[in-house]
Amino acid sequence: MSETLRVTVWNEFRHEKKPTHKAREVYPDGMHAAIAKALSAQPGFTVRTATLDEPEHGLTQAVLDSTDVLTWWGHCAHKEVGDEVVERVYRRVLAGMGLICLHSAHFSKIFIKLMGSSCVLRWREANERTRVWTIEPGHPIAEGIPEQFVIPHDEMYGERFDIPAPDTLVFVSWFQGGDVFRSGCCFQRGNGRIFYFCPGHETFPVYHQPEVQRIIANACRWARPLVSKPAVVVNAKQPLEPIVP
Amino acid sequence: MSETLRVTVWNEFRHEKKPTHKAREVYPDGMHAAIAKALSAQPGFTVRTATLDEPEHGLTQAVLDSTDVLTWWGHCAHKEVGDEVVERVYRRVLAGMGLICLHSAHFSKIFIKLMGSSCVLRWREANERTRVWTIEPGHPIAEGIPEQFVIPHDEMYGERFDIPAPDTLVFVSWFQGGDVFRSGCCFQRGNGRIFYFCPGHETFPVYHQPEVQRIIANACRWARPLVSKPAVVVNAKQPLEPIVP
Amino acid sequence: MSETLRVTVWNEFRHEKKPTHKAREVYPDGMHAAIAKALSAQPGFTVRTATLDEPEHGLTQAVLDSTDVLTWWGHCAHKEVGDEVVERVYRRVLAGMGLICLHSAHFSKIFIKLMGSSCVLRWREANERTRVWTIEPGHPIAEGIPEQFVIPHDEMYGERFDIPAPDTLVFVSWFQGGDVFRSGCCFQRGNGRIFYFCPGHETFPVYHQPEVQRIIANACRWARPLVSKPAVVVNAKQPLEPIVP
Amino acid sequence: MSETLRVTVWNEFRHEKKPTHKAREVYPDGMHAAIAKALSAQPGFTVRTATLDEPEHGLTQAVLDSTDVLTWWGHCAHKEVGDEVVERVYRRVLAGMGLICLHSAHFSKIFIKLMGSSCVLRWREANERTRVWTIEPGHPIAEGIPEQFVIPHDEMYGERFDIPAPDTLVFVSWFQGGDVFRSGCCFQRGNGRIFYFCPGHETFPVYHQPEVQRIIANACRWARPLVSKPAVVVNAKQPLEPIVP
Repeated sequence: MSETLRVTVWNEFRHEKKPTHKAREVYPDGMHAAIAKALSAQPGFTVRTATLDEPEHGLTQAVLDSTDVLTWWGHCAHKEVGDEVVERVYRRVLAGMGLICLHSAHFSKIFIKLMGSSCVLRWREANERTRVWTIEPGHPIAEGIPEQFVIPHDEMYGERFDIPAPDTLVFVSWFQGGDVFRSGCCFQRGNGRIFYFCPGHETFPVYHQPEVQRIIANACRWARPLVSKPAVVVNAKQPLEPIVP
Repeated sequence: MSETLRVTVWNEFRHEKKPTHKAREVYPDGMHAAIAKALSAQPGFTVRTATLDEPEHGLTQAVLDSTDVLTWWGHCAHKEVGDEVVERVYRRVLAGMGLICLHSAHFSKIFIKLMGSSCVLRWREANERTRVWTIEPGHPIAEGIPEQFVIPHDEMYGERFDIPAPDTLVFVSWFQGGDVFRSGCCFQRGNGRIFYFCPGHETFPVYHQPEVQRIIANACRWARPLVSKPAVVVNAKQPLEPIVP
Repeated sequence: MSETLRVTVWNEFRHEKKPTHKAREVYPDGMHAAIAKALSAQPGFTVRTATLDEPEHGLTQAVLDSTDVLTWWGHCAHKEVGDEVVERVYRRVLAGMGLICLHSAHFSKIFIKLMGSSCVLRWREANERTRVWTIEPGHPIAEGIPEQFVIPHDEMYGERFDIPAPDTLVFVSWFQGGDVFRSGCCFQRGNGRIFYFCPGHETFPVYHQPEVQRIIANACRWARPLVSKPAVVVNAKQPLEPIVP
Repeated sequence: MSETLRVTVWNEFRHEKKPTHKAREVYPDGMHAAIAKALSAQPGFTVRTATLDEPEHGLTQAVLDSTDVLTWWGHCAHKEVGDEVVERVYRRVLAGMGLICLHSAHFSKIFIKLMGSSCVLRWREANERTRVWTIEPGHPIAEGIPEQFVIPHDEMYGERFDIPAPDTLVFVSWFQGGDVFRSGCCFQRGNGRIFYFCPGHETFPVYHQPEVQRIIANACRWARPLVSKPAVVVNAKQPLEPIVP
């Protein structure tokens, strides 16, 4: 809970390194670079990045301890994320760190662990048009976001999305091919706040869209830690009030 | 989803086997026997029991596949529950099986895995009086339960209980020593329904109380499976509606 | 809380009485007749109907007192529903009676009064195709309902639907014209359960569809009263526990 | 949504004007003066007050239009609040204004109208000790608030509190006499955020307690408007996407 909001943007960063992958055209420096650039423009944000292939995936205890909000994008290498790093992130979330899970991060180890359910969904790669509808305009994550906006092309993620009912449902998406999706979902776990946001297939310039950038920035502000220590078991031996038979 | 409700009552069954343990006086045949007896008196219930020291803890795939609702009591041996059995129960819950977690089951592997949070709480063994208040009288689990009832002596479990906000909060408990607790909590995970109910320390005749028996029976009915297969990832290649540019 | 489930199907019944109105072709005896017929086929249901132009709109105190669940369809004459009847229904819902609000009943006096918000929405009459997606397959109202089903033609109702966040969101609808809608929403008010279900414009045979009939029947079962008296202010002068300084 | 947070502190201000009423000793200038003084000390807050006996209860359209968050304390004169003023406040809340309802404001016309339920509760005037427990420490309204704190003497408000389940339950209170109460409850209605906070009988110096002042200040910040216009019915005649048969 420093003066600035310290955001760490994590990316799997594999697609963008393959010479002929379309993701490389859209995000030549990786998706994390695009997201970090957008967030850096926000007043009061201090932003750094971390990626899978760095030692400890760039998420050492020291990095996490100085992170207020972590954003996460992963897709093809969820299984390569080490369990000890997942555990480290998990503990930090429960202690208060915010976590923004983007697109295919629905299937990351950390998201599944925090949800307690399978997180499976329907999907389709058909370059279809999608519309993000604002369901809860009075929520801080929707601040400045229109009633709806278009993402010209994206992968379809559709219901049934096997998650616990979100504490707040902020956005629902419409897909051309006939599907709907709870695309902006808030969760509290321990002292930490989690936001899942659906848009962002690696081959489309979704993270270059101003509405998407605004939503992620809003989510980071919303998920800022208010507490920074985990809950612990307390043997409250001494009662606060007299126990009389 | 058979005609009858097939309930399996699971118990750690360790305290009650120790020759001088007070639990043995209260529950000479084990807590599972008391709970199973009460549930067996319900119309339409078929009840069996399973305990930790049976092979596979009594929870083979065959047992789980023919269980509609599983009740769980564990305390001192959570760590001895095999991970493969936990995983098996987890999958069955997501597929639709109901799960009723009792008292110290708040710290069982299966409950923590389904919650996605630490599940820590405050506690005190002071034989204090507690009152269970009905917060949501219109909920099926509260059917026939008075506005409040007394448990003459129980272990105190107090807030902050580090769980995700329940989908429905049915009961809140008052403790003599100055604590409160969300003592009756509903959760949905996958197709399965979970109810956590706080009362039931092993040294007190809590599961002999009619209100407690009624609540557990109501919870079993509420948690009966409506679906009995897990959600799966679906590659919905063929769109339902035409995708035109 | 009788042995049978006593359902009263209420309908404004104005469109269907106009000689040339399309509703008359689809529902020659009124929408209430179609809904009541479908519900009567359910085991254990006792069904009657009531309409706006009957004395007291057919909703005398005696009728309401012997109603477990009331279904409501209204559209062009919301304002003609007498305030004293609205108040009577309101009190019965808080006392425990279930209420199923269908389609344009989103704008009925009783629904707005129970929601505490404007209940406005986007709408369009374009005969478009809509798909109802099951968001919570483990919920009793979704029992037997497929992953999604089509309503070939219906009026569009779209977000932002200005309601309090539902206690449970069971269905979300997709519309051809680019809209989404929280189309199946559960609410608890007092001891009563309320379900809002979107499909059902008067000019389309929506209430002849088996999936829609099944959902309404499921909702009636889910909303059956578990308590049948209102909460009252209690001056609890005599404390349950000693108050010592 | 100005630079500062414009708070209007509304008080019935009747008890404190009676020459011999104990409230006068505790709050010689009225409870609103105490609350306003505490809030004025918050950085960025602009605070004014309004009371029942002013013209239009001090809540003209102009006052409301320049109010971001309204706090409300009322008790013996709920019925004297004019319906047109209630309607005006209601519309402003749905448009985005925050509303903090304090103690006996649970029975104000505006709170009941926004809740859609009876809002009845158990109560007792026995000067008993109460403890406010923080259920959701990661919520902005709990920022800086300890695990629990004592209010040495207050009126008891107890469950069943007949409200819709809050969107977030932040505090639960323990009472000496054996009762519990959901004492800090968040609701969203339209674009507006509502917080109900239980402590604050007129004869006790509850609003002089720093924890209580901090909670009210936190709640005002949390409830700041993010949107400032009401939702409206939209005839979305022109579909966003082509409607093809």
